[in-house]
Amino acid sequence: MDNAIVLASGGLDSTTVLAQAVADGFAVTTLSFRYGQKHDIELARAREISSRYGAVRHLELELDPRPFASSALTSGGEVPLDRSHESMGAAIAPTYVPARNMLFLTMALALAEGLPARDIFIGVNHVDYSGYPDCRPAFIEAFEKAANLGTSAADGGRPFRIHAPLMQLSKAGIIQLGISLGVDYSHTVSCYLADDEGRACGHCDACLLRKQGFAEAGVPDPTRYRS
Amino acid sequence: MDNAIVLASGGLDSTTVLAQAVADGFAVTTLSFRYGQKHDIELARAREISSRYGAVRHLELELDPRPFASSALTSGGEVPLDRSHESMGAAIAPTYVPARNMLFLTMALALAEGLPARDIFIGVNHVDYSGYPDCRPAFIEAFEKAANLGTSAADGGRPFRIHAPLMQLSKAGIIQLGISLGVDYSHTVSCYLADDEGRACGHCDACLLRKQGFAEAGVPDPTRYRS
Repeated sequence: MDNAIVLASGGLDSTTVLAQAVADGFAVTTLSFRYGQKHDIELARAREISSRYGAVRHLELELDPRPFASSALTSGGEVPLDRSHESMGAAIAPTYVPARNMLFLTMALALAEGLPARDIFIGVNHVDYSGYPDCRPAFIEAFEKAANLGTSAADGGRPFRIHAPLMQLSKAGIIQLGISLGVDYSHTVSCYLADDEGRACGHCDACLLRKQGFAEAGVPDPTRYRS
Repeated sequence: MDNAIVLASGGLDSTTVLAQAVADGFAVTTLSFRYGQKHDIELARAREISSRYGAVRHLELELDPRPFASSALTSGGEVPLDRSHESMGAAIAPTYVPARNMLFLTMALALAEGLPARDIFIGVNHVDYSGYPDCRPAFIEAFEKAANLGTSAADGGRPFRIHAPLMQLSKAGIIQLGISLGVDYSHTVSCYLADDEGRACGHCDACLLRKQGFAEAGVPDPTRYRS
């Protein structure tokens, strides 16, 4: 079995990707990151979900939080609530964390050099919502190119491949894929303001998109809301 | 004055770059990283040099060391000594740290988003020695492209620029540039095995290239060696 690394946040998207990578036959190491996020319940969920869906190893890595302080997901202001879809798409999200996916992918790349692994999976998608530049196909392609020029792959090693299997799927499509892979979404937490028991606010962008996804997929929403 | 970020290791190359960025008129924030390196004397030197050469701020960031464990600079085996130039160029160096420059640059990028800064300086060069894929022009160009696609620059922000002013210089050329900028290299430490007082081994790749650089530049070598 080839090794793969899956970036895992305990949410709907990355759990679907984990199930996909395991179904594809990889020996999966999941990676999650403590970077000063308010919703650190995601870390416990990522660990639990990694074990539940067949990862062979889970690592929780520390990232110095100071470079990320400007985001509403860390210390930089309030998470916006009840935004319209138009408002979400109009500009970069206040919950955008500077260069976060690039950092997560690069930490995965460093680890992959040593494992060794050549396949890195990330649950980005840009169909429902494109307020995060680091979730778009052009970025993922450019990152993969830089990764293969700046590592041992540049000198004849097997190239790294960044897999973004959800890229072209809507949230409803992701849910349908996950269900076909046996994912039980009641264990996942997407909310930016989840409480310590993983109950969701129902009003942040992540909650609104998730709720709409279950509705469009025609699947009962298993999310536990606070009110 | 525009802000710039300079990656600073307390060594010869990054100190030259710091002096150049200050001479170029930037308000410089220097960044160094604790990532499990054996030669952590570089962190104290980077701080001291940042203040000496006019940085307005110095930050020392923590990186979880686990992804880098395969390098001889961290926990993965011995630093090679007294290698010939041919041997240095024949393969990726045992002292290559997986994806290290990509991580350092990405942390700088995250910080730059918040400062804000658009200019990031790094002291890579590939003339004397090309055993590090993340020190080559093709990588730096590809990184800059990914950075501008994965951040706020993608949505109309001013583009980030990765400056590598030493890229085409030999070690002797770097030393001549630094001296013209007023750098006193006796404060810098390049050795991979430097002791707690910053005294160099004289035999690792970094020492050999530095020694040869001073000789070729016709400049007295101010390095303090242990023996």
